[in-house]
Amino acid sequence: MSFAKLDQLGHRLESLEHAQSMLSVDEAVQMPAGGGEKRAEAMAILAGMYHELATAPHIADWIAEAETESLDAMQRAALRERKRVYTNMTCLSAEFVQMQVGAQVRSQQLWRELRPMGDWKGFLPAFEGIVTLVREEAQLRSEVLGLSPYDALIDQYDPGSRQADITPIFSALKTFLKGFIPQAMERQRAGMDKPLNAPFAIEKQKALGLAMMKAIGFDFEHGRLDISHHPFCGGVPSDVRMTTRYETGDFLSALMGILHETGHGLYEQGLPKQWSHWPVGKARGMAMHESQSLFVEKQIARSREFWQWAMPKLLEHLGEGSIAGWNIDDLMVHVHRIEPGLIRVDADEATYPLHVIMRFELEQGLVSGGLAPKDVPDAWDHKMKDYLGLSTIDNAASGPMQDVHWPSGAFGYFPSYTLGAMMAAQQWAAIERKNPDLRGDVAKGSFDAVNTWRRDNIWSKASQFSTQEILTQATGEPLQAKYFISHLKQRYLS
Amino acid sequence: MSFAKLDQLGHRLESLEHAQSMLSVDEAVQMPAGGGEKRAEAMAILAGMYHELATAPHIADWIAEAETESLDAMQRAALRERKRVYTNMTCLSAEFVQMQVGAQVRSQQLWRELRPMGDWKGFLPAFEGIVTLVREEAQLRSEVLGLSPYDALIDQYDPGSRQADITPIFSALKTFLKGFIPQAMERQRAGMDKPLNAPFAIEKQKALGLAMMKAIGFDFEHGRLDISHHPFCGGVPSDVRMTTRYETGDFLSALMGILHETGHGLYEQGLPKQWSHWPVGKARGMAMHESQSLFVEKQIARSREFWQWAMPKLLEHLGEGSIAGWNIDDLMVHVHRIEPGLIRVDADEATYPLHVIMRFELEQGLVSGGLAPKDVPDAWDHKMKDYLGLSTIDNAASGPMQDVHWPSGAFGYFPSYTLGAMMAAQQWAAIERKNPDLRGDVAKGSFDAVNTWRRDNIWSKASQFSTQEILTQATGEPLQAKYFISHLKQRYLS
Repeated sequence: MSFAKLDQLGHRLESLEHAQSMLSVDEAVQMPAGGGEKRAEAMAILAGMYHELATAPHIADWIAEAETESLDAMQRAALRERKRVYTNMTCLSAEFVQMQVGAQVRSQQLWRELRPMGDWKGFLPAFEGIVTLVREEAQLRSEVLGLSPYDALIDQYDPGSRQADITPIFSALKTFLKGFIPQAMERQRAGMDKPLNAPFAIEKQKALGLAMMKAIGFDFEHGRLDISHHPFCGGVPSDVRMTTRYETGDFLSALMGILHETGHGLYEQGLPKQWSHWPVGKARGMAMHESQSLFVEKQIARSREFWQWAMPKLLEHLGEGSIAGWNIDDLMVHVHRIEPGLIRVDADEATYPLHVIMRFELEQGLVSGGLAPKDVPDAWDHKMKDYLGLSTIDNAASGPMQDVHWPSGAFGYFPSYTLGAMMAAQQWAAIERKNPDLRGDVAKGSFDAVNTWRRDNIWSKASQFSTQEILTQATGEPLQAKYFISHLKQRYLS
Repeated sequence: MSFAKLDQLGHRLESLEHAQSMLSVDEAVQMPAGGGEKRAEAMAILAGMYHELATAPHIADWIAEAETESLDAMQRAALRERKRVYTNMTCLSAEFVQMQVGAQVRSQQLWRELRPMGDWKGFLPAFEGIVTLVREEAQLRSEVLGLSPYDALIDQYDPGSRQADITPIFSALKTFLKGFIPQAMERQRAGMDKPLNAPFAIEKQKALGLAMMKAIGFDFEHGRLDISHHPFCGGVPSDVRMTTRYETGDFLSALMGILHETGHGLYEQGLPKQWSHWPVGKARGMAMHESQSLFVEKQIARSREFWQWAMPKLLEHLGEGSIAGWNIDDLMVHVHRIEPGLIRVDADEATYPLHVIMRFELEQGLVSGGLAPKDVPDAWDHKMKDYLGLSTIDNAASGPMQDVHWPSGAFGYFPSYTLGAMMAAQQWAAIERKNPDLRGDVAKGSFDAVNTWRRDNIWSKASQFSTQEILTQATGEPLQAKYFISHLKQRYLS
């Protein structure tokens, strides 16, 4: 039976993925610097072996044969996702991929070198090469997938998501935010008059983070928390490896980072175990993944109700004197700070979408050819001034050179962040309709109901359906901007 | 060119080995318990992929063709070792290996369960199965390798080592030790009258261990020290992962363990990097490996001169009060304690060889059929009484059930430990002939000369020559018992 052959192939691929994931985690968490060269060699060779195994021509025959076999609904979904992944992996030639990966590695290395100086001119030739190859990639994928070139790229990160669906939602959000941000800033307390009583010992921050992870539902039998330079959530669903980075001067950044990654971790831990070796058993895509991390970070952990429960825990772990004399309002000033800034990753939940939307708009031009790479700094500056009132001209380091995505050839990824934020708000609203005392639960530190809902409606669905289908089944309607907008109004204007 | 094809194959195999090594390390050091099931599955599948890749029939053709190509001496050695490994990996059928691995896994699991109760009767049927399969394995290997059955097993762990060479050396050593041990015990101070001033904080013990590793020459750019239940030295030569286990009641056991594993680590770090993807670039075998760990632990770190240098460091890290009122003689009482005991892994350097020699003797009977599995407890007890004056009858847990080797089917491994101890003494003697002030160097904490000698004569040779050839080239003569005997006399009777 061909389905059985594909099942066996899945186990082999999963084992290689397991090795690749864990080697990446180890590299970030444990590996001494001198181990890097051989690690890179091993990773490259394992990636080649994986690609060879996953794109072998006989797989197309197995898929075609399996489509004629008698399968149940889940098996049919599994076959459809395997076919989708196979099509996506085989629509570029090995030569093209090799050339592109080489260019991306060189461009990323150059970017790392030139970014601190904001040397856009030095970086531009490499970036032009990347954009040329991305256009070519988009064209090649477009032909096979029957999608527009930019949609073919978005589809790599958020399968089923289309520019035509995203654009009106992002437009509505942009219009709202341009009015909302000044309003919300006017209402917020002018200064953060009670500074954090630093330092906060790393061991204490860690204990606090672990306690929060546990309360939120992270399963430490199947995962752990470590330290790395760039926080991430990696590993495999049966063994989720989260990391954070502590600063002794501020406990909030590590704690919020931990809660964000916990959201990713819960999704991974909640995927259906018996399908872990098939694409259908994996997380749906970057937008849905981000919806789960933002659900925990923004919907739960930046709510006032969360801090009603969490503030005593915080004092318990960091010590009574850590934020001496603070009440919850003082804390919420920090948790709810809105402040337009140049850097996306440092942005609050209100200004963040504008960073994403401008990248989404610029990407469309870059992929279509309407925007030349050399014109990016001007276009960037124009949009930053328009959306956030800040200029980045002559500051490429904090402008178009700030993100790793473009230098590494990842176009079509950015929308996921804000789609995720909107999905999280829509999910929260759906849960609250079902359970009007949801905020009361959070204030008691009870996260069972939200986790049960998400397990049933999101995590266990894995990749059985498209992002839109999962969201619609779960919340009763396709993605809307209004829930995110209501969320912001409720939190910052009410 | 077929040699080039084998070179490329080597890179692929090395990448899988890299993944397997690091996944094993992660399992022991980092992995949460719930990750075990999927980890085991991934490891089994990767092992299968490795075996498939390493034993493909076309490799035999490549080897045959490469033998006709124009190669330099190192390439010829590389080809010879690749052929040796290929022959050893292909001389058992896949069916036989699968059956044997299954039996070994079940036997080990049963052993873990029954060992605490010393339930020999419950374990015997599984052990009989293991012995039957080992006899069959030895026979199959014997036919292909042209060696006696037991030699064919020894050859898996210490290539080129033969029962006929080991026997006279072990006999000489056994005769000596039976007289030496009572003599040495009579001379040692009766009681350890100054007890260790425990507890010793783990963080302090770790800092001491790291300082000692560094002083001995361990390269932390290419390795690190962690904690695991069973100490080991794993990873890859470019990234050596050592572990230890701390007891707060005694700093010596962890420190000596660290120094032992550091010896293994130095060997790995000193292997020729450009050949790391060929068998010829790997460590020579278990006996040579053990000679390197025992060189550091026994020759260097249990010498009085070492402690002349190390005692101030110890006080610096553990605190002046940690062994308050001790002089170096008090410390040496602990470092040089000889005491016959039931357990091999707890044995001192004088009684340890007798544990090994009795296993070597019993193994020969088990493999040839001269000793039936059911008669092992009696045979064990008989030898323990004869060699160490201790009985283990009715105490299988501390008798024939104490080691993991036999329950897991590893016959022919035990001799390596004592061959290694003897080689270490012979290497020390050769260095001391060249550098009469070697002990003076050690007393100053200068290990450059010993490391340079070992790098030139042992580490860089990797598997270019047989164990005996490397030892003979390095020390001017094949393995002798007399250097180890002199070492013991000098340390314990002079």
